Amino acid sequence: MDGKSNRSFVLNKPLDVGYEDRPVPKLNSPYDVLVAISWTGICGSDVHYWQHGGIGSFIVKEPMVLGHESAGVVAQVGEAVTSLKVGDRVAVEPGYPCRHCEFCLAGKYNLCKKMVFAATPPIHGTLTGFWAAPEDFCFKLPDNVSLEEGALLEPTAVGVHIVRQAKVQPGQSVVIMGAGPVGLLCGAVAKAYGASTVVQVDIVQSKLDFATSFGATHTYLSRRVSAEENAASIKETCGLPDGADVVIDASGAEPSIQASIHTLKVGGTYVQGGMGKSDIIFPIMAFAIKEATALGSFRYNSGDYKLALELVASGKVDVKRLISGKVPFDKAEEAFKKVLEGQVIKVLIAGPNEKV
Amino acid sequence: MDGKSNRSFVLNKPLDVGYEDRPVPKLNSPYDVLVAISWTGICGSDVHYWQHGGIGSFIVKEPMVLGHESAGVVAQVGEAVTSLKVGDRVAVEPGYPCRHCEFCLAGKYNLCKKMVFAATPPIHGTLTGFWAAPEDFCFKLPDNVSLEEGALLEPTAVGVHIVRQAKVQPGQSVVIMGAGPVGLLCGAVAKAYGASTVVQVDIVQSKLDFATSFGATHTYLSRRVSAEENAASIKETCGLPDGADVVIDASGAEPSIQASIHTLKVGGTYVQGGMGKSDIIFPIMAFAIKEATALGSFRYNSGDYKLALELVASGKVDVKRLISGKVPFDKAEEAFKKVLEGQVIKVLIAGPNEKV
Amino acid sequence: MDGKSNRSFVLNKPLDVGYEDRPVPKLNSPYDVLVAISWTGICGSDVHYWQHGGIGSFIVKEPMVLGHESAGVVAQVGEAVTSLKVGDRVAVEPGYPCRHCEFCLAGKYNLCKKMVFAATPPIHGTLTGFWAAPEDFCFKLPDNVSLEEGALLEPTAVGVHIVRQAKVQPGQSVVIMGAGPVGLLCGAVAKAYGASTVVQVDIVQSKLDFATSFGATHTYLSRRVSAEENAASIKETCGLPDGADVVIDASGAEPSIQASIHTLKVGGTYVQGGMGKSDIIFPIMAFAIKEATALGSFRYNSGDYKLALELVASGKVDVKRLISGKVPFDKAEEAFKKVLEGQVIKVLIAGPNEKV
Amino acid sequence: MDGKSNRSFVLNKPLDVGYEDRPVPKLNSPYDVLVAISWTGICGSDVHYWQHGGIGSFIVKEPMVLGHESAGVVAQVGEAVTSLKVGDRVAVEPGYPCRHCEFCLAGKYNLCKKMVFAATPPIHGTLTGFWAAPEDFCFKLPDNVSLEEGALLEPTAVGVHIVRQAKVQPGQSVVIMGAGPVGLLCGAVAKAYGASTVVQVDIVQSKLDFATSFGATHTYLSRRVSAEENAASIKETCGLPDGADVVIDASGAEPSIQASIHTLKVGGTYVQGGMGKSDIIFPIMAFAIKEATALGSFRYNSGDYKLALELVASGKVDVKRLISGKVPFDKAEEAFKKVLEGQVIKVLIAGPNEKV
Repeated sequence: MDGKSNRSFVLNKPLDVGYEDRPVPKLNSPYDVLVAISWTGICGSDVHYWQHGGIGSFIVKEPMVLGHESAGVVAQVGEAVTSLKVGDRVAVEPGYPCRHCEFCLAGKYNLCKKMVFAATPPIHGTLTGFWAAPEDFCFKLPDNVSLEEGALLEPTAVGVHIVRQAKVQPGQSVVIMGAGPVGLLCGAVAKAYGASTVVQVDIVQSKLDFATSFGATHTYLSRRVSAEENAASIKETCGLPDGADVVIDASGAEPSIQASIHTLKVGGTYVQGGMGKSDIIFPIMAFAIKEATALGSFRYNSGDYKLALELVASGKVDVKRLISGKVPFDKAEEAFKKVLEGQVIKVLIAGPNEKV
Repeated sequence: MDGKSNRSFVLNKPLDVGYEDRPVPKLNSPYDVLVAISWTGICGSDVHYWQHGGIGSFIVKEPMVLGHESAGVVAQVGEAVTSLKVGDRVAVEPGYPCRHCEFCLAGKYNLCKKMVFAATPPIHGTLTGFWAAPEDFCFKLPDNVSLEEGALLEPTAVGVHIVRQAKVQPGQSVVIMGAGPVGLLCGAVAKAYGASTVVQVDIVQSKLDFATSFGATHTYLSRRVSAEENAASIKETCGLPDGADVVIDASGAEPSIQASIHTLKVGGTYVQGGMGKSDIIFPIMAFAIKEATALGSFRYNSGDYKLALELVASGKVDVKRLISGKVPFDKAEEAFKKVLEGQVIKVLIAGPNEKV
Repeated sequence: MDGKSNRSFVLNKPLDVGYEDRPVPKLNSPYDVLVAISWTGICGSDVHYWQHGGIGSFIVKEPMVLGHESAGVVAQVGEAVTSLKVGDRVAVEPGYPCRHCEFCLAGKYNLCKKMVFAATPPIHGTLTGFWAAPEDFCFKLPDNVSLEEGALLEPTAVGVHIVRQAKVQPGQSVVIMGAGPVGLLCGAVAKAYGASTVVQVDIVQSKLDFATSFGATHTYLSRRVSAEENAASIKETCGLPDGADVVIDASGAEPSIQASIHTLKVGGTYVQGGMGKSDIIFPIMAFAIKEATALGSFRYNSGDYKLALELVASGKVDVKRLISGKVPFDKAEEAFKKVLEGQVIKVLIAGPNEKV
Repeated sequence: MDGKSNRSFVLNKPLDVGYEDRPVPKLNSPYDVLVAISWTGICGSDVHYWQHGGIGSFIVKEPMVLGHESAGVVAQVGEAVTSLKVGDRVAVEPGYPCRHCEFCLAGKYNLCKKMVFAATPPIHGTLTGFWAAPEDFCFKLPDNVSLEEGALLEPTAVGVHIVRQAKVQPGQSVVIMGAGPVGLLCGAVAKAYGASTVVQVDIVQSKLDFATSFGATHTYLSRRVSAEENAASIKETCGLPDGADVVIDASGAEPSIQASIHTLKVGGTYVQGGMGKSDIIFPIMAFAIKEATALGSFRYNSGDYKLALELVASGKVDVKRLISGKVPFDKAEEAFKKVLEGQVIKVLIAGPNEKV
C-alpha cells in the first residue's frame, strides 16, 4: 500500500473527534482481503458514540475509529482467496464472527459473542484508509451498482434482516414507526417482499413526504395523543380496520413502541428494530391477548447482504435517493453535525485516498 | 333430561354469587351433544370475575354462570353426531369458534372474534347441570382417565398451548415463572417435550417443594431484589450460565416478566402465559439486543386438547396430583374461597347431578 | 330465480357430454349465497374427466356437471350472510370443507375428506346456471377486476398455493417445469414473491415465447436427452451453476420430475404441482443426498384465494393475457376440444344466462 | 505422542484391507486437538466401501483408512483451545466443514462442499491411532458416559438429525422402516421427542424382537406383498387408520420407500434416512395428493451431537444395548465380516493403543 494513507477519523472521547495516521491493517488469515475504503455512510450509532461515548453496555474507553457503512476497492488478497482479486469493487459487511461458537455453527452469527464489528468498542471502524476482512464478508458489486450505493448496503441489510425477522408475505400490511434511513429501507424491502400496504409513521411531515415518494402506500403523522389513539387513527386512516399484519419499530421511541402493539392485528408480528431507552412502559396484556409475536432484530446474518445487493442491483430498492450529500474525508465532522441536526437522510464521507 | 336439575352457580355481581335453576340448554346444531357436567375445576379467572366483576375489557354486566374447566357424561346427541354416544365420558373444550372467519379457516380458532367461551361474559359457564357443545369440542376419555382428570384437561391444554408456542425442543432449558396450576403444568408438559432442565420459580417455598415432586429439575425462590439480580441468580444456581433457551411467564407479575427477559439466552424464546397488569415496565433493549422472540399465548387451539388428553392418559402429566380436594355443588362458594386464599392447588366442584 | 335457466353442461360418460336442465340449487345454510355463473374456465382436469371418465381414484359413475373455475353475480343471500349482497360480483372458490375435522380445525381445509368440490365426482360442477356456496368461499371483486379475471382466480390460487408451499423468498431462483396456465401462473406468482430468477421449461417453443412475455427471466426448451443432461443444461444456460433454490413441477411428466430433482440446489425445495402417472422412476438418492425438501400441493386453502385476488387486482399477475378466447354456453364442447388440442392457453365459457 | 502407534486399518481396494503405520496427524489450526482413538464402531458405509470400493459418486481411488464412529482421549491441544485439555474423554464428530461457504454461514454445515469427513474418499478415517479435529467438533463426555457409548454418539446423531428433519412432535405416530442401528436409534430418539406410537418395520423377526425391548410400541414384519398391502397392514395392525404422522425410511430399500409413502397420513412427513439404489419407482401421485412433505437427511449438523450426548447421558437412549461385542484392533477385519453377515447390531473395534 505504498504511499497510501491510512488516515483515520477517531473518536477520542465524547464530542472530541480528530484525525490520526494509523498503520495499515495486516491480513489476519489467508482468507482475508484488504479493502481501500471509498465511501462510508454515517449511522445513528456513530453519532450516538460521538455524542455520548457509548451505547448501552458498549463504552468507548480508548480512542476508536468510527464508521461501519462502507464500500471500497480490493487492494490486496490473501493467498487462499479465490472469489476476489485486486481492483474488485466491494461492499464490506463490517463485522465478522468467530465461526466456532454454537451461534456461528447454527447460522446465527450475528449473535456471536466474539463478533469483531467495526466501530463497536474496542474495534476500530471503517472511516479509515484500509480495512481487512474475510473474503466471504466482502460483496463484489456488479457494474450497475456504484461504490456509493455499495456503502448503503449496510443499512439496507439492516432493513432486510428486520423484514426477514417479520416474515413479511405478499399481500400483507406493514406499518413502520420512524422514517429515518432504516425505516425507509424497511418500507422498500417490505414492498420487495410483496407487502401490499406499507404505512410509514413519523413525527416530521417532510420525512413522510419523502417516504411517499420512496414507495410508501400510506403515511401517518404521529400526534401527541395516547398510543391507543394514534394506533386507532393509523388503522382508520390507512384502511386497516383489524390492524396491521406486521409492525416494525424503527424509531426506538417509547410512544412508537406502545403504538406498535396497539396497531397490531390479532396474531400479528412486531419487530423491534430501533434503539432507544433500556426500559419502557409496554402494553404487555394487549400483546398477550392478541397472541402476537415480538422479535428483536440485531444487525444481519446469513444471506442478508447478498439480498440487499440483489435488491439494489435490480432497482427494487433505490438507495441512491437516500444520499443527501457527499463530503471529502476532511469534512467528516461537518457531516456528523448535519446528521445530528437531522438536515439530511444519509451523508457519505469519502475515504482518505478517494478523490471527490 | 327428565327430572335432572340444571341448577347453576351464578355470579350476580362482584362478590355476590348464588344458585339459580336455569333451563337445560338446547342443541344448537345437529353436530352438538349435551353433556351432564360431572366435575368443574376453578380457574384464577373465575375467582377474578367473582372478586372484580371483570377482566380487562370483559365485564360481567348480567348475571353469569361461572366455570369452564369441566368433564361430564354425554346425555344427548344431535342427529349428525357420529363420534359420541349417550353415556360417553368426555372432557369439554369450553369454547367453540365461528368456523367461518379468517382465523378459523387458518387454524387459529382461539383468535376467533365470535368465539363462544364458557364464563367469558356474556356467555354462561359450566358450573351448571348441562352444557351443549359441538362434538368436535368434546374429547372422549379412555377408561384409564377419570372424569376428575378430564376436568383438568383444560389447564393442561393451556400449558400445552404455551409450550407449543415456545416450540420447546428436546435438550432445552425452560424456566417457568410461577408455580400455580398452569405453571406446574407448563413444567410437566415441557418435560414431555423433552426439556432437560425445567426450573420452576415462585415466591412461595411450599409451591416450589411441590414443583420438585412434580418433576422440576430445579427451583428458585424469587427474592425482593432487582429483576437483573434474580435473573443472574437463576442462571447461576440452575447451571444456565448463558441463560435459558425458553422462559415462560405463568405469573403475570411485573417483576417476573422483567426477570424473564433477563433470564433468556441470546436468541431465546419467551412466552407470556399469565394474566396481570395491562402495562408494565419492560426491558425492551435487553430483549431486542438478544434478538429474542416473545409470544403471547391465548387459550388453546387445534390439537391442544388432544395432546393434553394423550399426556394425561399416558401418565406423562399426572394431573391427579394437582387435585387438592373435591366439594359438592352446594359448597361451590367455599371452594372459591379456598382458591382465593391460596390454600389449595386445584379444587373440583361436583356437578349438581353428581353424587359425591 | 324466476325465468332463469339452470342449464348445465354434463359429462354423461367418457367422451359423451351434453346439456341438461337441472333444478336451481337451494342454499344449504343461512351462511350460503347463490351465484349466477358468468364465466367458467376449462381446467386440464375437466378435459381429463371428459376423455377418461376419471382421475386416479375419482371415477365419474353418474352424469356430472363439469367446470370449477368460475365467477358470477350474487343472486340470493342466506339470512346470516353479512359480507355480500345481491348483485355483488364474486369469484367462487369451488370447494368447501366440513369445518369440523382435524384438518379443518388445523387450517388445512384442502385436506378435508368431506370436501365438497365442484366437478370432482360425485359433486356437480359450475358449468351451470347457479351455484350455491358459503359466503366465505365467495370473493367480492373490486371494480377493477372483471368477471372474466375472476374466473381465472381459481388457477391463480393453485399457483399461489404451490408457491406458498415452496416458501419462495426474495432473491431466489425458481425453475418451473411446464408452461401451461398453472406453470405460467406459478412463474408470475413467484415473481410477486420476489424471485429474481424465474425459469420456465417446456417442450413447446411457442409456450416459452409466451412465458417470456409473461415475465419469465429465462426459458429452456426441454430436449430428448436424459434428465441429468436437461438439468445440467438448465443450470448452465440460466446462470444457476449450483442449481435452483426452488423447482416446481407443473407438468406431471415423468422426465420433468426427474429433471426437477437434478436441477435442485443442495438444500433446495421441490413442489409437485402437476398431475400425471401414479408411479414414476424417481432419483431418490440424488434427492436424499442434497437434503432437499419435496412437497405436494393440493388445491388451495386459507388465504390463497384472497392473495390471488390481491395479485390480480394490483396488476402483479396479469391473468387477462391468459384468456385465448370466450365462447357462449352452447359452444362448451368446442371449447373443450380446443383445450384438448392445445391450441389455446385458457378459454372461458359464458354462463347459460350470460349474454356474450 | 512418543512411543504411541498410529497403526491404521486401511482399505486398499475392494475386499482388500490391511494395516499400515501412518504418521501421527499434525494439528491444522490452533483450535485443533489430537484425539487418541479408543473405540470405533462399524457403519454400513464402511462395509459398503470394503465390499464395493465406493458409494455413489464417492470412489476410493487411493488406499483409505476406514472408520468414522469414534471416541477417544485428548492427547494434545492447540494453543487456542479453551474448552478441552489433555486427558479429556471425547466423542468425535468425524467431519468438519469449511466455515466460509453459504451453507456453513447459514448453519447447514452438513451441506458444505468442502467438508472433510472421515472415511469418505479421499479423507482417511478414524480406525487409526490419532485423529486431529477442531475442538468444537469434539464433545467432552460426562463421567456417566463411557468411551464405548461415546463412539455410538455418531449413529445417535444420525438418528437425531433424521428425527429433527421430521419435526416429530409429542403425541405423534412415527413408523420406521428398517430396524438396523440407525432405525432403532430413530425410534428411541422419536420417543424422546414425545412420539406416542413408534412402529418399527423390518423383514427379520429377531430385529423386531429387539426393537420391542428397545422401546418400540409396535412392530411389523414386512411381507412379500405390494407396498400398498404392507402399508394397509401396518395401519391396521398398529392402530393408525388414517396413517402415520411421520414415516422414516432407515432401510434404503425400494419396497420400504414405496410403503413409506402409502403409510403416510394425509399431510404427513417422510424422511429418507437410508441409502440404497439411486433411482426407484416412487408413488409420486399418492405423495402429491396427500400434500405430504418429503425430506432428505444427510449426516448431522448444528446441535445434533450435543443432543445425542444429552439423550445418552440422561438415559433416554440406551446405546449400550446396541453393542453386540468389542474386538481388539487386530481383529478389525473379523468385525467387518460379522457386520456383513448381519450377526450383530454394532461391533466396536479398539484403537491400536487401547488395552482390551
